[in-house]
Amino acid sequence: MRPSEFLLVSHESVLCFVPVGGCKADWRPSNSPKLIDLLDDTVPGIGTYEDFNTIDWVREKSKDRDRHREITNKSKHSTVALLFSISDAFSGWLLMLLIGLMSGALAGGIDIAAHWMTDLKEGVCLNGFWFNHEHCCWASNETTFQERDKCPQWKTWAELMVGVSEQGSVNVLNHFMYVSWALLFAFLAVILVRAFAPYACGSGIPEIKTILSGFIIRGYLGKWTLIIKTITLVLAVSSGLSLGKEGPLVHVACCCANILCHFFTKYRRNEAKRREVLSAASAVGVSVAFGAPIGGVLFSLEEVSYYFPLKTLWRSFFAALVAAFTLRSINPFGNSRLVLFYVEFHTPWHLLELIPFVLLGIFGGLWGAFFIHANIAWCRLRKNTRLGHYPVIEVLVVTLLTALLAFPIEYTRMSSSELISELFNDCGLLDSSKLCDYSGNSGGTSGSVNATAANGLGARLAGPGLYTAMWQLALALVFKMLITVATFGIKVPSGLFIPSIAVGAIAGRLLGVGMEQLAVHNHERKIFRGWCSPGADCITPGLYAMVGAAACLGGVTRMTVSLVVIMFELTGGLEYIVPLMAATMTSKWVADALSRESIYEAHIRLNGYPFLEAKEEFRHKTLATDVMRPRQSDPPLSVLTQSGMSVEEVERLIADTTYSGFPVVISQQSQRLVGFVLRRDLVISLENARRHQEGVVSVSAVLFTECDPPASPSAPPAVKLHNILDLSPFTVTVHTPMEIVVDIFRKLGLRQCLVIQNGRLLGIITKKDILKHMAQMANRDPESILFN
Amino acid sequence: MRPSEFLLVSHESVLCFVPVGGCKADWRPSNSPKLIDLLDDTVPGIGTYEDFNTIDWVREKSKDRDRHREITNKSKHSTVALLFSISDAFSGWLLMLLIGLMSGALAGGIDIAAHWMTDLKEGVCLNGFWFNHEHCCWASNETTFQERDKCPQWKTWAELMVGVSEQGSVNVLNHFMYVSWALLFAFLAVILVRAFAPYACGSGIPEIKTILSGFIIRGYLGKWTLIIKTITLVLAVSSGLSLGKEGPLVHVACCCANILCHFFTKYRRNEAKRREVLSAASAVGVSVAFGAPIGGVLFSLEEVSYYFPLKTLWRSFFAALVAAFTLRSINPFGNSRLVLFYVEFHTPWHLLELIPFVLLGIFGGLWGAFFIHANIAWCRLRKNTRLGHYPVIEVLVVTLLTALLAFPIEYTRMSSSELISELFNDCGLLDSSKLCDYSGNSGGTSGSVNATAANGLGARLAGPGLYTAMWQLALALVFKMLITVATFGIKVPSGLFIPSIAVGAIAGRLLGVGMEQLAVHNHERKIFRGWCSPGADCITPGLYAMVGAAACLGGVTRMTVSLVVIMFELTGGLEYIVPLMAATMTSKWVADALSRESIYEAHIRLNGYPFLEAKEEFRHKTLATDVMRPRQSDPPLSVLTQSGMSVEEVERLIADTTYSGFPVVISQQSQRLVGFVLRRDLVISLENARRHQEGVVSVSAVLFTECDPPASPSAPPAVKLHNILDLSPFTVTVHTPMEIVVDIFRKLGLRQCLVIQNGRLLGIITKKDILKHMAQMANRDPESILFN
Repeated sequence: MRPSEFLLVSHESVLCFVPVGGCKADWRPSNSPKLIDLLDDTVPGIGTYEDFNTIDWVREKSKDRDRHREITNKSKHSTVALLFSISDAFSGWLLMLLIGLMSGALAGGIDIAAHWMTDLKEGVCLNGFWFNHEHCCWASNETTFQERDKCPQWKTWAELMVGVSEQGSVNVLNHFMYVSWALLFAFLAVILVRAFAPYACGSGIPEIKTILSGFIIRGYLGKWTLIIKTITLVLAVSSGLSLGKEGPLVHVACCCANILCHFFTKYRRNEAKRREVLSAASAVGVSVAFGAPIGGVLFSLEEVSYYFPLKTLWRSFFAALVAAFTLRSINPFGNSRLVLFYVEFHTPWHLLELIPFVLLGIFGGLWGAFFIHANIAWCRLRKNTRLGHYPVIEVLVVTLLTALLAFPIEYTRMSSSELISELFNDCGLLDSSKLCDYSGNSGGTSGSVNATAANGLGARLAGPGLYTAMWQLALALVFKMLITVATFGIKVPSGLFIPSIAVGAIAGRLLGVGMEQLAVHNHERKIFRGWCSPGADCITPGLYAMVGAAACLGGVTRMTVSLVVIMFELTGGLEYIVPLMAATMTSKWVADALSRESIYEAHIRLNGYPFLEAKEEFRHKTLATDVMRPRQSDPPLSVLTQSGMSVEEVERLIADTTYSGFPVVISQQSQRLVGFVLRRDLVISLENARRHQEGVVSVSAVLFTECDPPASPSAPPAVKLHNILDLSPFTVTVHTPMEIVVDIFRKLGLRQCLVIQNGRLLGIITKKDILKHMAQMANRDPESILFN
Repeated sequence: MRPSEFLLVSHESVLCFVPVGGCKADWRPSNSPKLIDLLDDTVPGIGTYEDFNTIDWVREKSKDRDRHREITNKSKHSTVALLFSISDAFSGWLLMLLIGLMSGALAGGIDIAAHWMTDLKEGVCLNGFWFNHEHCCWASNETTFQERDKCPQWKTWAELMVGVSEQGSVNVLNHFMYVSWALLFAFLAVILVRAFAPYACGSGIPEIKTILSGFIIRGYLGKWTLIIKTITLVLAVSSGLSLGKEGPLVHVACCCANILCHFFTKYRRNEAKRREVLSAASAVGVSVAFGAPIGGVLFSLEEVSYYFPLKTLWRSFFAALVAAFTLRSINPFGNSRLVLFYVEFHTPWHLLELIPFVLLGIFGGLWGAFFIHANIAWCRLRKNTRLGHYPVIEVLVVTLLTALLAFPIEYTRMSSSELISELFNDCGLLDSSKLCDYSGNSGGTSGSVNATAANGLGARLAGPGLYTAMWQLALALVFKMLITVATFGIKVPSGLFIPSIAVGAIAGRLLGVGMEQLAVHNHERKIFRGWCSPGADCITPGLYAMVGAAACLGGVTRMTVSLVVIMFELTGGLEYIVPLMAATMTSKWVADALSRESIYEAHIRLNGYPFLEAKEEFRHKTLATDVMRPRQSDPPLSVLTQSGMSVEEVERLIADTTYSGFPVVISQQSQRLVGFVLRRDLVISLENARRHQEGVVSVSAVLFTECDPPASPSAPPAVKLHNILDLSPFTVTVHTPMEIVVDIFRKLGLRQCLVIQNGRLLGIITKKDILKHMAQMANRDPESILFN
């Protein structure tokens, strides 16, 4: 400060410039780099967060940079420190390797167990009860290629119990056993979830999105959640409910990552660094769910992550690959394929087919919007009425309903994954499925190959089996659509990737077969003549199923690039990207026109998580002054002064308010900002001072300055809290448009921001204020933004 | 303001609270949304930027949001406005479509022309001079499958001129013609670049990175650059210089995008929106260069882009696909393949092969570091010595050297793309290449197929042709490594993807053949026994070439995920991701250990572009106060006061300083911040007022407040500049660590930030200050951060 200006400064700030006891009198900090005392960890608990609070990304990243700097500095002095520094640098990669291995192994285990238990509902293998149907018949030598799934070693429960008897009673008995097993599995799943890990239910993706955005939910990614979710996921999938294991696998992978983080100081102690690892883990989850590592990374980038630096991109990719290859080594599908649904099509698509593809996109968008609306309405009903008090009964009722209705139709009885595989599959000459019952081809039951079609078009003329299959598929479509709405949200682990894909695949296959028959019957028309040469396949119903699946999944989740890439990895051909893209684009546009939210965002809002959506731009014309607290009618802002307050006064302020932090000003009159102090740090420090610092009494002064003010020698010792003061709080002016404030909050990951005008502190904006304001602007109840 | 506090405010700020002439006396703006006048475009020029300046991302994005809001509001009132609003929403997609079509078409044209002109160096087609060698012989019926490239219609220049004469003189004549054509092409290229578009030289990627980060270089993406770059790129590639067309294609695509933006108001007027389109265009560039749309998008995301919102991701993907399919429709490679190098391998790789792959990674890293170091040293020499004054001669000398040395060896004579194709290719039984001259296979010259190998291992025992090929390849490797260093940076369009890939592919193939022969000769050893069963191929030299190519490209560009994805799209198999990743990871680590910068960053620094690298974290412990201007020894900060300055005083301040903007404070004494005004806006407004506002003289007051201060009635009318004042400048405190300041600048795209302490304005930090500080911290010359 230049001397001539000295007197113009209001009197309070002069306090700090009086050169007392070695206190720095310079008007600005010296040029030498200076440690910020925020990170002084001497008092335990300072710098940590309470449950259901939002982390401060800036502070966490600063902490990590300080840590890194310290290690680098030390490494110049000793070899041990150098080795430590190198191991620290590689610990991220090691962690990724471990996450990949653990998640891949768990996913493999889940796949195998779910496969076995799904088959257990129908029967058991005499060679050993631990064989599933397929393995049981593989081990047997008596099967032909045609009847891979029929072998004497595999007995249905009815066969086992009563021997081969009257067909009707066998069916009833099998149905009874099917329902019983399903109920047992579902009951075990819901009881385990309720007893040990309530967080294990649902898909977990909405919560993981919220956690990645900086919220803290303790125990959500803990070891109990992991164990219970893994077990109950197998049970829930095996029970035949209309749910998938893909979403929960993301949760499982994140649990693995969180637990493994505990072994690395770098990640255990830093909430921001841990979230980088969790972002990678969500990529791992999708990678093992679909065998699509690149798609997984893009899913994490597009859908789940909040803060995704390039370093994380590369590490996610590594972890996703490790996980995919671990899964492949376990080989749960028994076919050495990395991917869940391996498809290979041989016929190129025709430009005109874009019309049905776009139609599928419209269907997908409509279905997505309907599903989200209906599911949220149902979940709200569960939340607000007595229905929510009986989760076990609800699960059992839904399971009973699913099992009773699903058993009679072949396509609903089989597991969703099998169904999707069959729908995606292109009909070969040897296929014995009813879906491939073309009159020029081998029928579903005859088993003999009769490839000599009577006429050129006969090869693709539908046989009676195909017509039956179409009816059954149509029924299955309606059934799946309705039951999925009721299923997603019950208190067992449940993903909706697989049900959505199944709905889309059924719709696509129906349309595909329809198109195919249209082409076969009208192959002389001009439109089909140049396209469908007689005898050759010109329409691939399996491709339609795949496009439909992409459209429906896109409608529900609003994924775009990652979805196309996942589908591209499933088929391995660039050829089909255009159909997939046309469908997902249409689907997203249609669904967005009806409602902007994806199912995950809808659930986040339903649960009132404090999540600041990064995709949607804030488009209203309000200013910071419209959002900041206190409002004009409110009492003035609760602030601390940098000196002049006693311990008692500060404690009273803490007791009287519930704010998470307080701005520190030079004086109540000038309201000139000095810094910001967090409530938690303040409470801990004051308690600590009362307990350990001698002579601290209620009238002791609390100082947030580095220098002592002139005080009488008889005064009790002051409590110096300069080390917990954040000297660089973020500030905006009252005139700052809210769109910029929202941008700052999103991009920097702030918890709060102070509002000043002409150098005077006027108010504060917290993340919750912003969320409430956004809710208000969208004509929603602003009070819904609370964790409950 | 509460009455009791009123008098405590320093007297200057009271001015604004005196209720004069309807001026708002409220202590804070009303709750009703308020328009910020920044965007008041009545005075032309306000809100635009000068050349070689940095844009303000926050302001540009605000402008766009305002525009969008206005359109949305209007659309509620009339149908025409609604249609306009819809067309505005879809204009982004339309623009992407056009960019894809135009870039795809241009890339196709470039491919065809370059192919033809490359062949023109060797000979001409008698059927029509416009046929290239391959097309010429396709049209001919006299060729067999074995000798596709030998047909009577294709005449080398020697054959054409002197008939078939003595072999030696034919060779000399062909060599002479080859060199002459090369010199002609190179001369034309360099002359065109120098005469019409100096910005057309080089790869363009460093400049595009800088432009995308917010810098303005007028004309860099203009129509002249586009035309000249397209023509000279063909010439440069055809001249046989060691350069590729991949980098320049990114520049070409960005030029297309920039030109097409002029047809859309939304993008023409907004620098931030235009940069979103340019990010998508760089994805398009890579997409057409390699036929890898997903890789292109990831390249844009990882390597080029600065601000890449999710919406851009999706649009980039769309544009990249459109471009790829346009290119495929043009079918420049004549094989219906989308990709530049289509490869298909049939042999899986063995875990032990990771050792040679990692070795290739190390080679790639070393080569990358060496190349960057040598190339930068060479470019610096060119820049600082008289060498730089003779660009035409330099180009001709390099071309002469390349043509003279390249002709004798088959592998350097052929174009780099052909060479890479051949190196990537796995040897089939029918391959007539010398590289496939195995003793159990058909020789390079014999042409007859002799697949019955004498013994089990004979199938892969090297023949004499292969040994010759190895020697030639080793020579070609050394030649390419040296000549590329001298070539990248000469004044013609030049990319380095292809040369890097070529170097890597040669090294990889050499190692691959070496490994193969090792395995063949030692197939009885324990190590090879379980892996190489006799008679079967166990090592694919083509895969080694591909891995080597990825490693070398990774070493030079430091790309990671995008590189692996591009390579994955080239082969279409997930199987080879692990070898590719092992090699690129090793390569990146090795190269990063030697020097942190990629070739693009090194060139950015060499040219002194103001580019704030987003990847590298700022790790020093300095505070805002260490970086801000004025320094302690400097004169005080030049500020404007919100009232009390005359037109003359303001004009003198403008004339005396060169700053791009000035903070506005309440008074010189209090230094309490009101806002920030840009020099350009200020100059334009004052000129405008002098010219058009009546009665404005030098002593007229300049007011930055909304309300008039009490003035004598005789005083000349005041110039009111409230509308150009940014009321929400970004501020940080003096104690803010620089790491946080750097983070804010990067994430929000700021130009400048004001530094305050306890409500007083102390200084300013601009982007250049940060860059200088970073250079200083890295012990480099801080003055190098200037555009020159």
